[in-house]
Amino acid sequence: MYRLIKTCGRAKRGELVTPHGTIQTPVFMNVGTCGAIKGAVSSYDLENIKCQVELSNTYHLHVRPGDKLIKKLGGLHKFMVWNKPILTDSGGFQVFSLAQLRKIKEEGVYFNSHIDGRKIFMGPEESMQIQSNLGSTIAMAFDECPPALADRSYVENSVARTTRWLERCKKELDRLNLLDDTINKEQMLFGINQGAIYEDIRREHAKRISDMDLDGYAIGGLAVGESHEQMYHIIEETVPYLPQDKPTYLMGVGTPENILECVERGIDFFDCVLPARNGRHGNVYTNRGKLNMLNAMYELDDSPIDEECQCPTCKRYSRAYIRHLFKAKEMLAMRLCVIHNLYYFNNLMEEIRTSIENGNFEEYKKMRLEGYKRAKEEQVIMKRNRETGF
Amino acid sequence: MYRLIKTCGRAKRGELVTPHGTIQTPVFMNVGTCGAIKGAVSSYDLENIKCQVELSNTYHLHVRPGDKLIKKLGGLHKFMVWNKPILTDSGGFQVFSLAQLRKIKEEGVYFNSHIDGRKIFMGPEESMQIQSNLGSTIAMAFDECPPALADRSYVENSVARTTRWLERCKKELDRLNLLDDTINKEQMLFGINQGAIYEDIRREHAKRISDMDLDGYAIGGLAVGESHEQMYHIIEETVPYLPQDKPTYLMGVGTPENILECVERGIDFFDCVLPARNGRHGNVYTNRGKLNMLNAMYELDDSPIDEECQCPTCKRYSRAYIRHLFKAKEMLAMRLCVIHNLYYFNNLMEEIRTSIENGNFEEYKKMRLEGYKRAKEEQVIMKRNRETGF
Repeated sequence: MYRLIKTCGRAKRGELVTPHGTIQTPVFMNVGTCGAIKGAVSSYDLENIKCQVELSNTYHLHVRPGDKLIKKLGGLHKFMVWNKPILTDSGGFQVFSLAQLRKIKEEGVYFNSHIDGRKIFMGPEESMQIQSNLGSTIAMAFDECPPALADRSYVENSVARTTRWLERCKKELDRLNLLDDTINKEQMLFGINQGAIYEDIRREHAKRISDMDLDGYAIGGLAVGESHEQMYHIIEETVPYLPQDKPTYLMGVGTPENILECVERGIDFFDCVLPARNGRHGNVYTNRGKLNMLNAMYELDDSPIDEECQCPTCKRYSRAYIRHLFKAKEMLAMRLCVIHNLYYFNNLMEEIRTSIENGNFEEYKKMRLEGYKRAKEEQVIMKRNRETGF
Repeated sequence: MYRLIKTCGRAKRGELVTPHGTIQTPVFMNVGTCGAIKGAVSSYDLENIKCQVELSNTYHLHVRPGDKLIKKLGGLHKFMVWNKPILTDSGGFQVFSLAQLRKIKEEGVYFNSHIDGRKIFMGPEESMQIQSNLGSTIAMAFDECPPALADRSYVENSVARTTRWLERCKKELDRLNLLDDTINKEQMLFGINQGAIYEDIRREHAKRISDMDLDGYAIGGLAVGESHEQMYHIIEETVPYLPQDKPTYLMGVGTPENILECVERGIDFFDCVLPARNGRHGNVYTNRGKLNMLNAMYELDDSPIDEECQCPTCKRYSRAYIRHLFKAKEMLAMRLCVIHNLYYFNNLMEEIRTSIENGNFEEYKKMRLEGYKRAKEEQVIMKRNRETGF
């Protein structure tokens, strides 16, 4: 289902054919945790900002409104009215980060819902059943995500269990995909590589799961406390042991800089809450760095967030208007900035794809990184000038 | 500029030609207090829900971001990116209802801003200057809106002052419209009839201001505490003394029932915050009454809010999805319901216009009111059945 179209060093330009359409990679997946992008962005808006894949959270949808309810309503695609690919995470990360009083056992995790304290059990089979009920295009394997700084013996045991859980996930999803009333009988499964910052554990685990011939492979447990350099190093050490002819997904990453660095290291699926979260606070992305729309300097600025941008926000609205909306606490402010940010990320990926096709990804990456770096330097100078009265 | 196309009893089907396009009446104006419809609805969304006129509040825009700033940015149309007609109120109503420590004098009103407590003076000239800075299509005269239950001698004095203020408004707007740097040199002025619930004061005031040959006439100071019957009675007593060949605007009204009753009594401009405010709380309008999207009965309901509705929300999303979004506190819930409600009101006005054109407004009105009444009765029965366990 995955076809590698072109490479540029380790950078991969591919496509993944799915029952919900073909995903062109490298791709950034737009996060709609509870079946909607935060910031009043509708699935209809997503069609206008180059979004290819929507990502929803299994844990959140399981506790509310419930995956069985969504199945009764025809699955998540129909529920949120989005007919392109959807990836669901496994619920594992949220269980480990959100849920209270969790207890990890061989069979799975016992925990209390963060909404109503209700006791829940989730193991590999339960995660697959929930994701099957949601009918997402791509299901993620149920894994444990150990803390980046966990000690070696903890990580070894955890990764071994994650491998056993992956086998159970595959078996269960194969079973579910054959059932009569399954919504998406071609639901794909991506395995997740773990191992914290231990290169050798990561490598061995990568080899181990690569043998299982899954639809794609993710690198999990990064961007959770380690430095960017550590993250890049782990990716460099791990990616060569994952199959090149399968999607390679770096979970929860990241900034435009992170994405450019990681595409170079062979990653072609990304997701992150940053563009939506930053947008809701008025922080917007441009090729000349991040801007904060609440800044007084935009009070009379009738230019768009980004002159170069073709997003629905920049085609119409000015910085002055957006700043006013934030000051007046109008929800529209958040929506306009989230739409801009998601478009920025989706468009960045399109440019990355084109540059790999044209064989000039390295130049493209260099140009973008220099733009971001120069912007940061200029902002430091401007701040210093303001403070010293120039 | 106003043309009466057809009448049906007292009901008027007209059109008002403005520099920003022609308004077909009866019309419902969509309220965007601070230059944006609350609920993350953009001016672009308004184009898809049959909105003809956007209404913004002079007082709010004067205190934030400031009318001078909006003028520098090319006026309110450019600021909020809406090229169809805009009506601005005079600021009077907000000064009397929101501002603190106000003092009414012959020259105008001294008050403190509700945002930062700053002392502000607003009189007829100031209100016209602010509205001229905003460059709205239609400016409203600066009036005092006395409480519905104020005593007779207070209302007499207040109305006499409102008449003197109206003369000053006209003189000042005539002057402003001739200035070189005025944004909208054809800004129109609507006068406002006051008189609380005293028919004779209303009548005399209506005659007095009709002589001034303004662009339109509003009835103010209703829907502020009196009963619906009192309101309808006052309108019946007042409208015949306002020119039929000018727009007749009932300020701040109201429900679909109110609108149907008041169109019958000769009103053809309306505005109200209700559809947007109700939408934000999940209360939505249909021809079969109001529904609350948070109701548990919609949990598994995959039908749209209203099967008959062609709005962007009903064309895509289900009651179950909208209910889930409210439960998950997703802002998108509010936006979808506000869009539906505004469309409902704008579409109701279109149906009213068609029925007047076809000479069957009475039948149309009767059908709609019966639909609303039956829905209320059914909801009472359903509630009783639930309570008694049927």
